[in-house]
Amino acid sequence: MTVVQGTRPRVNAGRLNGHIAALGDIGRGPGGGVTRLAFTAEDVQGRAYVAGLMLEAGLAVEVDAAGNLIGRRRGADGTAPALVLGSHIDTVVNGGAYDGAYGVLAAVEVARVLHEEGVRLRHPLVVVAFCDEEGAHGTMGMLGAHGFTGALPAGFGEERDNRGITIADLLAAVGGDHLRLDEAAWTRDEIAAYLELHIEQGSVLERLGVPIGVVESITGRLNLTVTVEGVAGHAGTTPMEHRVDALDAAARVLLAVRSIAADEGIVLRATTGTCSVEPGMWNVIPGLVRLGVEFRDVTASALDDAVARLGELAQEIAKATGTQIEIGLGARTTPVDCHPGLRDLIARCAAELGLSSHRLPSGAGHDAQIVARIAPIGMIFVPSTGGVSHAPDEHTPPDQLTQGADVLLSAVLQLDGGLVAGR
Amino acid sequence: MTVVQGTRPRVNAGRLNGHIAALGDIGRGPGGGVTRLAFTAEDVQGRAYVAGLMLEAGLAVEVDAAGNLIGRRRGADGTAPALVLGSHIDTVVNGGAYDGAYGVLAAVEVARVLHEEGVRLRHPLVVVAFCDEEGAHGTMGMLGAHGFTGALPAGFGEERDNRGITIADLLAAVGGDHLRLDEAAWTRDEIAAYLELHIEQGSVLERLGVPIGVVESITGRLNLTVTVEGVAGHAGTTPMEHRVDALDAAARVLLAVRSIAADEGIVLRATTGTCSVEPGMWNVIPGLVRLGVEFRDVTASALDDAVARLGELAQEIAKATGTQIEIGLGARTTPVDCHPGLRDLIARCAAELGLSSHRLPSGAGHDAQIVARIAPIGMIFVPSTGGVSHAPDEHTPPDQLTQGADVLLSAVLQLDGGLVAGR
Repeated sequence: MTVVQGTRPRVNAGRLNGHIAALGDIGRGPGGGVTRLAFTAEDVQGRAYVAGLMLEAGLAVEVDAAGNLIGRRRGADGTAPALVLGSHIDTVVNGGAYDGAYGVLAAVEVARVLHEEGVRLRHPLVVVAFCDEEGAHGTMGMLGAHGFTGALPAGFGEERDNRGITIADLLAAVGGDHLRLDEAAWTRDEIAAYLELHIEQGSVLERLGVPIGVVESITGRLNLTVTVEGVAGHAGTTPMEHRVDALDAAARVLLAVRSIAADEGIVLRATTGTCSVEPGMWNVIPGLVRLGVEFRDVTASALDDAVARLGELAQEIAKATGTQIEIGLGARTTPVDCHPGLRDLIARCAAELGLSSHRLPSGAGHDAQIVARIAPIGMIFVPSTGGVSHAPDEHTPPDQLTQGADVLLSAVLQLDGGLVAGR
Repeated sequence: MTVVQGTRPRVNAGRLNGHIAALGDIGRGPGGGVTRLAFTAEDVQGRAYVAGLMLEAGLAVEVDAAGNLIGRRRGADGTAPALVLGSHIDTVVNGGAYDGAYGVLAAVEVARVLHEEGVRLRHPLVVVAFCDEEGAHGTMGMLGAHGFTGALPAGFGEERDNRGITIADLLAAVGGDHLRLDEAAWTRDEIAAYLELHIEQGSVLERLGVPIGVVESITGRLNLTVTVEGVAGHAGTTPMEHRVDALDAAARVLLAVRSIAADEGIVLRATTGTCSVEPGMWNVIPGLVRLGVEFRDVTASALDDAVARLGELAQEIAKATGTQIEIGLGARTTPVDCHPGLRDLIARCAAELGLSSHRLPSGAGHDAQIVARIAPIGMIFVPSTGGVSHAPDEHTPPDQLTQGADVLLSAVLQLDGGLVAGR
C-alpha cells in the first residue's frame, strides 16, 4: 500500500539522540566507556530510566519473570498477534553507548511518535528490553530472550554466575522471578513479527557509504580448540632437522584456518583469537600449543564443512611436521535467517525514505536469533564508525541513528497494514 | 708421545657414579628432579659435599671471592701455568643430576686418581666448581666464571636478584666476598689450558651412537622480540578482506624464523619459544602479537646475517598483511671457538681409549665460553639419553660417564707432557 508522503510520521531526532546520550551516562566510566552489566545497580538504574520513557510513550510497563522490561500498547484488533520491537540495554565491561541501547530507545521512540500522533495500530505493539544479552559475570547470555521464547530449563534459577550468585537472586534484583519462568514464554501465534534495530558493529556499511543495512541472516558460530603436540627441547642443542616444534606446526594451522575463509571461501569468517605456548620460554622449543579458533557462517553446513576442511589440513600439517594435532569442538550457535518478507519490507521502507540499503549477514549475535525460534524476525543495521563496538569509542552519527529509527517506524506502520489517520 | 698401555691410569667407575648419585640426592624433589639453585642451602650442602671429595683427592680447597669452589694441586714445575678443569654444581629449578655436576665430579675423580696413583704433574692442577652458572633467581648466570676471568664490574655486589637480595649477600652465603672480587681474577699467563667435560644436552651423539663429542665451538646466542601490530576487531562482523590480523602476520613470521635456519641455512638454530596475543579472546581478531625469537650460531656474523634476513622477510610480511612489524634486539652472547690443539688432543685421547668421537658445536652455553677470554679451552661431551636436559629425566648411562672421565684424565696427562711413574 502507498502512504501519502505528507502524513508519514517521523521520529524526533533530538529526543532520540538525547535519550541515547542520557542512558549512556548511566554506568559511564572515567575513560568514556559504559559498564552497565546485567543485574547490577547500573542496570537497575538504566531500566528505571527506560521504564520512565516507556510510560511517557503511552506504554503499559511490566517486568516479566525472565527479567525482560516490556512496554505494551493495545491494538485495535483484540485478536491480532503483536508486533514486537526489541534489543537490550545491558553492556559489556567498558563498552559503548549504542550496542543494544540504540535498538531499545528507538523502539520506545517509535511507540512515542505513534502515541503523540494518535496513530492507532491494528496489532498490539510490544517493546522489549531483553535481560542480560551480554552474559554478565559468566551467565549464559541472551538470558531474557531465552526466557521470552520458553527455552530456559526447569531449575535454571539454581544455577550460579561466576561469582557464585544464583540466577534466582539475579532475576529477583531486576524484578524477575525464577519460579514463574514459564509465564515469561510467548508462543508462536502471539507474535506477528519481531524487528530489531542495531548498530552494525562492523565497517561494511561505512565503507560502502550506505546508511541502512538489511540483515539477511545472523551467523552461527562454532568454537574449536586446536591442540598441537610436539616435543619440547633445548633451543641450542637440538638441530633443526631433529625438531618436532609445536609452534612451527601451529603457525601452519593458523594460516590454514584463515585460508578456509579468505581463500577457499568455505566459511564466512575464520578467526584464531588465542594462542598459548608451553613451556613458553625463549630457549625451549615449544612442546605444546593451543589455538582458540572460531568459524562463523550463515549456514550450519558451512560450519561443518569448515571443520571437516580444517581436519584435512591439520592431518597434512601433522604428517609434515611430525606433530599430533587434535581438534576439539566447543560452543556452537545455529545460524538464523531473517524472514524474506521482512528483509524486503525493510529495504522498501528505506527506499521510500530516500535511503540506500545494503543486504549483509550479521556476524555478531543478537536477541533476534533467539526470538527467531517463535517468530519471523527482521533486523535493521546502521553504520558503526570505524566498525568499532564493545568499546568506549563505539559511535554512529546522530543523523544515521535517526534514519535507522525512521526505517523502523516505517516498517511498523507498513506491517500493521497502513496508517490510521492521526488526531 | 706414546704411553705404555699397562701404566695408563683409569678413573674408578663405581666411585665416580656413586658421587654423581650422592650429589644428585642433594636438592632432589619428590618427582626426581634436582633443585639446587646457586646460593641456597642446597647449594651450600652440595658445595660442602664436593669440598670433602676434593680434600679426599688431595686437593687444597678454597672459595674465591666470586664464590667459586677451587681445589688445587701443586705441579712439579713451580713456574708452569695451571691445567684447569671445571664446570658447575648449581642446577635450574627441577633440573637433572648430570648437567654441570658431572664435569666437576669427574674432574675431582681425575685429581683423585692422580693422587692415589702418585702421579706427579709438571703443571699445577686446578679443579673449579664455578659459582651460579645457571643464573639463580634472575642473577646474571656464569657469575663465578665472570669473576674468575676478572669480568665482574665494580659495584657489582650492590646489584640484586629478582627477590631483592644483593649479590654481596648472596656471595657471602657461599663464602665469597664482593669487596675482593679482583682477587678472584686469573690472568692469561696463569692458565695453560681449560678443559670442561659435560653432557651434550642434545641427541646428536646418541643418534650417531658415538660416545665422545669433541666440541668445536660454543654457539653465541641472540634474543629478539618481534612485535606485530595489526588492528583488533570483532571476529564476527569484520569481513576477511578488511582484517589486519596480527596473528596471521605472526604465523608468517614464525615460519620465516624457522626457514632462516632450516631452509636457508643462514644460522645454525632459530627458535621462537614464546608467543603472546592481545587481546587474546576467541571472538576478537588479534591486534598485537609478541614473539620471543632466538638465533644461535658458532660465528657472530651468522647471527647478524640472520637478523638482517629476518628484517627483510618481516618487511615483506608487513607489506603483504598491512601490519607493522618491529624487531627488537635483546641479550647477546658471543660465539667461542674451542682451541684447535685441544680439539685434536681430545679426539686422539678418545681414539687411544678405543672410543669413537664426533666433532660438533655446543648449542648450550657453558662456563668454558667465559674462561675462553683468558685461556685456550677444550670441551668433551658425552651423550644425553633422548637429548634431555634441565629436566628430572636427564640421564647418561654410567659406562658413558666413565668413558668421558677417562678421556678427561687422558687429556690431562697428555697435556702435562707425559706420565711420571707412580708411587
